[in-house]
Amino acid sequence: MKLDDSKNKMTLQELIDTNNFINHLSVDCAIFGFHNNTLKVLLLKYHELNLWAIPGGFIFEDEHLDDAAYRILYERTHLEDVYLEQFYAFGHKDRTERKNPHRQLLENKGINITKEHWINKRFVTIGYYALIDYTLSHTFPDAFNETCAWFDVNDLPEMAFDHQEIIEKGLEHLRKTIDYKLVGSNLLPEKFTMKDLQNLYETILGETFRRNNFQRKMLSLNILERHEKLFDGSANKAPYLYSFIKK
Amino acid sequence: MKLDDSKNKMTLQELIDTNNFINHLSVDCAIFGFHNNTLKVLLLKYHELNLWAIPGGFIFEDEHLDDAAYRILYERTHLEDVYLEQFYAFGHKDRTERKNPHRQLLENKGINITKEHWINKRFVTIGYYALIDYTLSHTFPDAFNETCAWFDVNDLPEMAFDHQEIIEKGLEHLRKTIDYKLVGSNLLPEKFTMKDLQNLYETILGETFRRNNFQRKMLSLNILERHEKLFDGSANKAPYLYSFIKK
Repeated sequence: MKLDDSKNKMTLQELIDTNNFINHLSVDCAIFGFHNNTLKVLLLKYHELNLWAIPGGFIFEDEHLDDAAYRILYERTHLEDVYLEQFYAFGHKDRTERKNPHRQLLENKGINITKEHWINKRFVTIGYYALIDYTLSHTFPDAFNETCAWFDVNDLPEMAFDHQEIIEKGLEHLRKTIDYKLVGSNLLPEKFTMKDLQNLYETILGETFRRNNFQRKMLSLNILERHEKLFDGSANKAPYLYSFIKK
Repeated sequence: MKLDDSKNKMTLQELIDTNNFINHLSVDCAIFGFHNNTLKVLLLKYHELNLWAIPGGFIFEDEHLDDAAYRILYERTHLEDVYLEQFYAFGHKDRTERKNPHRQLLENKGINITKEHWINKRFVTIGYYALIDYTLSHTFPDAFNETCAWFDVNDLPEMAFDHQEIIEKGLEHLRKTIDYKLVGSNLLPEKFTMKDLQNLYETILGETFRRNNFQRKMLSLNILERHEKLFDGSANKAPYLYSFIKK
């Protein structure tokens, strides 16, 4: 799919005037980043508000839901080549009633809308997540947001709507699916030691394991192939190198 | 939550006249049933059409999405006390254009609606699944359907919309999550043998395992507690009994 950069130049007025979004539905993306043994999540800060959100947006009437997720992520963050996986639809009826920044943002821009405007309706949002090696270093201001930043998942700022819950649920999902998520990821080099793998698991799962137990569990999953030892000068203690078995 | 049986007495005309559903959104439930080493799925047959569907329906404007799923399942099948888990939102833009029975059903009843009626809009549907020991033996005709029946997952009849894809994706999800789904389920007696457990896994995963490999994998998951042997008269060969560790 070709991602188009023009739509993120949309002003708030143009967004509000858009009349071909599917009402009641949105997409939000929990993008987890791993680097130097820390697990972070990508957040956007609303203009002139001390409130953060994960990258999200609306779905055009003629757009496949998954395509909307990739487009929205690209427009808000310029991230592409990220494998997004859907994990949950958040459908509490009051989920957008608290910490909703839209009214304030519109007031700040002097934009008036009716109570019946689509942006004031109840939204069910479809959550997507990804796990990447974090590489994003720029900020991409748009109609809603002034900056992008990575936050430690254990130290989040004030979040809009139910976005804290979306991050927690995304993280829970990531933890449940970690065994097969890592296989296709680029978070480890082609060949790695059991210690590298254990560091990655411990960071993502937020707990520590005994070395022997961890090794036994990993080998029982049948996802690893063993290679030569890693030569580091002290041959006796050299650890084996592993790679994920390609299916 | 109190489930109300009155809504499934709704006629097709009353359903069509309902104006407080959230537009564009529906819920569909893939209910898998295990019994006598067979895995089945619960389907409904449309009135006077040779077309089947999984139990589904629409969400009221003031209704939590999860509550809607339980209500819809109850109204269509009278199943309650089933733990429903959300697994995917199906959002292909053309997903209701093929094998859509609504027009024919309405025509058969002499009900005329406009092209702009909410039931003619594009729908994103939120899929829920459950795994139960199948106990349902009655049929519950309603506005859309004349009967309920269990089908072998490998031998489905002609399905409406993208419901075959929803079942396949639900099954894939069930297979991925089987290790923790079984722990809370009532598909096995309180204490069971490794052979009972292996039969259940093989039926759900649709593949066979070598006895030793299966046992090693199960024990490595740390979800089983070992008890006394099952006395069956030939003490030498008596298998151990296991139960799931209660967390």
